Amino acid sequence: MPSFSKKTSITRKNLIFGSRAVMETILAGKTIEKIFLQRALKGPRSKELYDLIAAHEIPLKHVPIEKLNRLVHGNHQGAVAVLSPVEFAPLEVIIQTTFEKGKVPLILVLDGVTDVHNFGAIARTAACMGVDALVVPMHRSASVAGAAMKTSAGALALLPVCRVASLKVALQYLQESGLLLFACHEKATQTLYKSDLSLPTAIILGGEDVGIAVEHLKLTDYQVKIPMQGPIASLNVSVATGMVLYEVLRQRFL
Amino acid sequence: MPSFSKKTSITRKNLIFGSRAVMETILAGKTIEKIFLQRALKGPRSKELYDLIAAHEIPLKHVPIEKLNRLVHGNHQGAVAVLSPVEFAPLEVIIQTTFEKGKVPLILVLDGVTDVHNFGAIARTAACMGVDALVVPMHRSASVAGAAMKTSAGALALLPVCRVASLKVALQYLQESGLLLFACHEKATQTLYKSDLSLPTAIILGGEDVGIAVEHLKLTDYQVKIPMQGPIASLNVSVATGMVLYEVLRQRFL
Repeated sequence: MPSFSKKTSITRKNLIFGSRAVMETILAGKTIEKIFLQRALKGPRSKELYDLIAAHEIPLKHVPIEKLNRLVHGNHQGAVAVLSPVEFAPLEVIIQTTFEKGKVPLILVLDGVTDVHNFGAIARTAACMGVDALVVPMHRSASVAGAAMKTSAGALALLPVCRVASLKVALQYLQESGLLLFACHEKATQTLYKSDLSLPTAIILGGEDVGIAVEHLKLTDYQVKIPMQGPIASLNVSVATGMVLYEVLRQRFL
Repeated sequence: MPSFSKKTSITRKNLIFGSRAVMETILAGKTIEKIFLQRALKGPRSKELYDLIAAHEIPLKHVPIEKLNRLVHGNHQGAVAVLSPVEFAPLEVIIQTTFEKGKVPLILVLDGVTDVHNFGAIARTAACMGVDALVVPMHRSASVAGAAMKTSAGALALLPVCRVASLKVALQYLQESGLLLFACHEKATQTLYKSDLSLPTAIILGGEDVGIAVEHLKLTDYQVKIPMQGPIASLNVSVATGMVLYEVLRQRFL
């Protein structure tokens, strides 16, 4: 089985190849996880394809032709699209639908969670705790396929995932929609349980390495921390997410 | 690198072999994770060795001689001991020390958590949340070496682990020492946050497959559940542990 990246699980079934087929798939509105294009791709349709990929903000990776040859046994014409097993949802629709249902929105924003196991575990917990959607950036995020899907125990097929081109724009949109933005990180001064999480809420958690980006932190309404006590102070992000979501449910259903 | 089990990480460094060397190691009070004995071991010292292993309640596995030959390149005489990277602590000492320090004890009991990654993740969270000790049964538990140590991010070297021959006896001991026993599982009727966790507390969580054994459930003072809301209701045990420990700290430090 050819494999391009440990973060992506590619099988024959979810590959579309050939420049026309890839373009048609984009235009049909299918959710595409990423597109592999041959380096320095030339040809009658290449500009059209590039424009389409850019317009639909689909993650793009340039690779040597040998990799494409290993990936598919057919005339790929330098273009291979990987279909997503998860249907990405537009954030606007999620927020609107949640309010219409009379539910207080609870959105989880993951800023740079690149570990697929953490991502899958977070999705599973989120699906157990009534999260309305996961918001992830197009770049600096784990793939939603393969290992993440497996770790999520199928939750990724049930939980709406919004993949956004700009997390900053998404955060601003959430705020304009009436949600309070909470950033949860170790260096915050306010303790989680002293915050009112009963209102429409979006919670931002940072990735394993660099945490929440400063430009995103600046936008938040509150920065909160999880109380800790012990010889080490480094909670795994999926465990921390569980604690935050527990606190939300405790406050909302007490 | 020879490997006996995916659950154990065996390296040359932590192996002791030869019946006399193994006996001396036991008598020296070293923490032994398990002992491999050749099937139908005979010889002048074999009865003595069997008695010593039984007296010290060390997990024992009978294996074919070929496995021992693969494991060590020397005259093993049918006996190989795997040293533990973690020093196991006596439960009595932990409880006494905790009370003496004026701390309200918080003990985490894992009943049948056999997945090493879950075990490591739980240890890491426990070390962040001020748990005084992990109590695990000698059988039906993940090995504390290798992958668990790695996942725990070193926490297993800092957090006391009590490995007990009988979880039932340990639970009774905890109760006699004045700790309240809480079992946390999905089918409980009382919600976690409606329980008073500010008193000396031991919390029991069950493994991935069968959960908490009925004979242990019967001993508990309270059975509690984590509130959930969503399309699935199957929290990972390490995430659930995080939520419970968060609630303990919330109540104790509010």
